[in-house]
Amino acid sequence: MGKLVIVGTVAFDAIETPFGKTDKILGGAATFIGLAASQFNIDTAAVSVVGGDFPQEYLDLLTDKNINIDGVEIIKEGKTFFWSGKYHNDMNSRDTLATELNVLADFDPKVPEAYKDAEVVMLGNLHPIVQTSVLNQMSESPKMVILDTMNFWMDCALDELHDVIKRVDVITINDEEARQLTGEYSLVVAARKIHAMGPQYVVIKKGEHGALLFHDDNVFYAPALPLEEVFDPTGAGDTFAGGFAGYLAKTEDYSFENMKNAVIYGSTLASFCVEKFGTERMQNLTKDEVEYRLKEFKQLTSFNIELS
Amino acid sequence: MGKLVIVGTVAFDAIETPFGKTDKILGGAATFIGLAASQFNIDTAAVSVVGGDFPQEYLDLLTDKNINIDGVEIIKEGKTFFWSGKYHNDMNSRDTLATELNVLADFDPKVPEAYKDAEVVMLGNLHPIVQTSVLNQMSESPKMVILDTMNFWMDCALDELHDVIKRVDVITINDEEARQLTGEYSLVVAARKIHAMGPQYVVIKKGEHGALLFHDDNVFYAPALPLEEVFDPTGAGDTFAGGFAGYLAKTEDYSFENMKNAVIYGSTLASFCVEKFGTERMQNLTKDEVEYRLKEFKQLTSFNIELS
Repeated sequence: MGKLVIVGTVAFDAIETPFGKTDKILGGAATFIGLAASQFNIDTAAVSVVGGDFPQEYLDLLTDKNINIDGVEIIKEGKTFFWSGKYHNDMNSRDTLATELNVLADFDPKVPEAYKDAEVVMLGNLHPIVQTSVLNQMSESPKMVILDTMNFWMDCALDELHDVIKRVDVITINDEEARQLTGEYSLVVAARKIHAMGPQYVVIKKGEHGALLFHDDNVFYAPALPLEEVFDPTGAGDTFAGGFAGYLAKTEDYSFENMKNAVIYGSTLASFCVEKFGTERMQNLTKDEVEYRLKEFKQLTSFNIELS
Repeated sequence: MGKLVIVGTVAFDAIETPFGKTDKILGGAATFIGLAASQFNIDTAAVSVVGGDFPQEYLDLLTDKNINIDGVEIIKEGKTFFWSGKYHNDMNSRDTLATELNVLADFDPKVPEAYKDAEVVMLGNLHPIVQTSVLNQMSESPKMVILDTMNFWMDCALDELHDVIKRVDVITINDEEARQLTGEYSLVVAARKIHAMGPQYVVIKKGEHGALLFHDDNVFYAPALPLEEVFDPTGAGDTFAGGFAGYLAKTEDYSFENMKNAVIYGSTLASFCVEKFGTERMQNLTKDEVEYRLKEFKQLTSFNIELS
C-alpha cells in the first residue's frame, strides 16, 4: 500500500441546478479527490490553502476520513477560494457565476515532510506552476504522477502546462479539452498526440458517455453507469481522479490491466458523487454501496460471445 | 437458424463529407441492413421498391450476398428513391441536400410467400404505415420484430408510429429520438417510458458513444470502438440494426444475454461501415476481419476486478 499526495483546491462552492440551489458548501478539487481516495484506507495527505473563514468542521471532516491536512495552510487573515456556478437543464454545460481566488491567488504549496516520498501524486486542477512546485518538492521520484487539468490553463498558461505534462505518467482530461490541447477531433488521434507530449497513459473523460484509457496501442472503454437522474455534476471529474489515484496507491500495480480497474473505480465513485449536492453523497458512502455498484458495472458491460 | 425479412429503402445516395463526395451510389436502409445480416449466412429477404433506373449490378450485388429480392418491386416507369446529404466537420450532424421520394411515395410492400413465416422481422426506417403493412402480412406471429425509426416520423406520423411501436419486441432509436419520443432527458427514464409503449427491449444508439440495451431493470452498455477516423457515417445505424437482427435470426435465442451479443455484433459491423463511402466497406468485409474486431471489442471493455 502506497502513500498518496493530493494537491488541489479546498474551497467553498455555491451551486444551482434544475433541482435546487445551495448556499456556500464544502467544495474543491482536493476535497473531492480526497473523499474518493479515502475509500481505499490509504495514507493520504492533502496539500492546499484556505482562509480564516474556513470552518473547523470541514477540516474535521477531512481528518475524520484519515486525510492528513498538515499540508493545508490556513491563512487567518485571508478568505477561502469560492466558486459559484449554475448548470443548464442538460447538466452538461454550466455558467460560472463567480470565481473569487482569494488565498488561492498566492498559493505556495508545501508538501509535508512525511509525504515527500509518496508513491502516488495526484495533481488536481490548478495552475500548472503550482502543480510543478509540488512535483519539485518530492524527495524521491514518485512511482505514478497523475495530472488533472482544464481548458482554462490551455487558454492562459499553455507553456507552463506543457512543462508539467512532460513530467507526468497519467493525464486525465475531458474530451473537449483533449481536442483543444491537440487540435484533433478524433480522440484516438488526440490521445496519440498527448502520449507524445509525455504521459504514458491518457484518460479521456466523456461524462455520461464514460471514459477512455489509452496506453500505446491499447484502449479501454469504461462506460458510465446510466443514471436515472444527475442531481449535481460538481466534483464528478475530481471524484473520478480520486478513485483512480486511490486505487493505484492501494494496489501499487501500474500495469495497463490494473489501470483499467482504476478507471472502473473512478467511474463508480463518480456515479455516486452526482447523486447529491456537493460532497454530501461522498461523505456517507459505504463500502457495501461501492461494492454493489461495482457489480452493476460488471454486469453493465459483460458479454460472452464465443470467438473461434 | 431462422429466416429474416427486412423492409426498408433500396436507394441512391449522394454523400459529401470533409473527406470527399460521391455521385449517386448504392444506399438505402434495406441495403445496409441486408449487407450486415449477410454476415450470418441466414435465409434473408428484402422487401422494397426501386425504379427502372436502378442498375442490375446493384440488384446482383444483393443476390450475390444471398439476399432474396423477390420482394423488391421494380417499377419500370418510376425513379428510385434518392437522398443526398452533407456531413459537418464533427460528423455528428448533417444537412439533407435533397430527398426525392419517387417510387417510395406509393410504396406498397409485398412480403414474398416463402418468407411470411419468418422468425425475425426487421422493420427498417420507413413510414410506420408501411412497417405495419409488413407485419400484417406475416402468416405466423414472428418470434422477434425489430423496429427502427427516426424523428421525422415523430414529427409527421406520431399516431401511426405509436400503433406500430405497440406491436414490436425491440425498438432501435438514437438518443435524441428517444428524448423526443418521451419528453425525457434521462435515457434511463426514456427507456422505461418506451417499454410502457410496447417493446420489451429498447436499444438506444449513441453514435460514437456506443449503444444501450434496456430490458426491464437490466441495462447493457456496448461502447463504440474508438476510431481513428470516421469517413462516412451513412448507413451506420442500419448496419447496426442488420447485425443485431441477423445475429438473432442466426441464433434464435432471444434472451437478454444473447441480445447483448447481438448489440456487440451490430456495433462491430457498424464500425466497419463508417470506414468508407456508402456500402463499399460492407461489400468486401470478410469473416476474419469481423472476428478480429470482435476480439478488439472484448478487449476494449473487459476488466477483472475482484469483488468480495
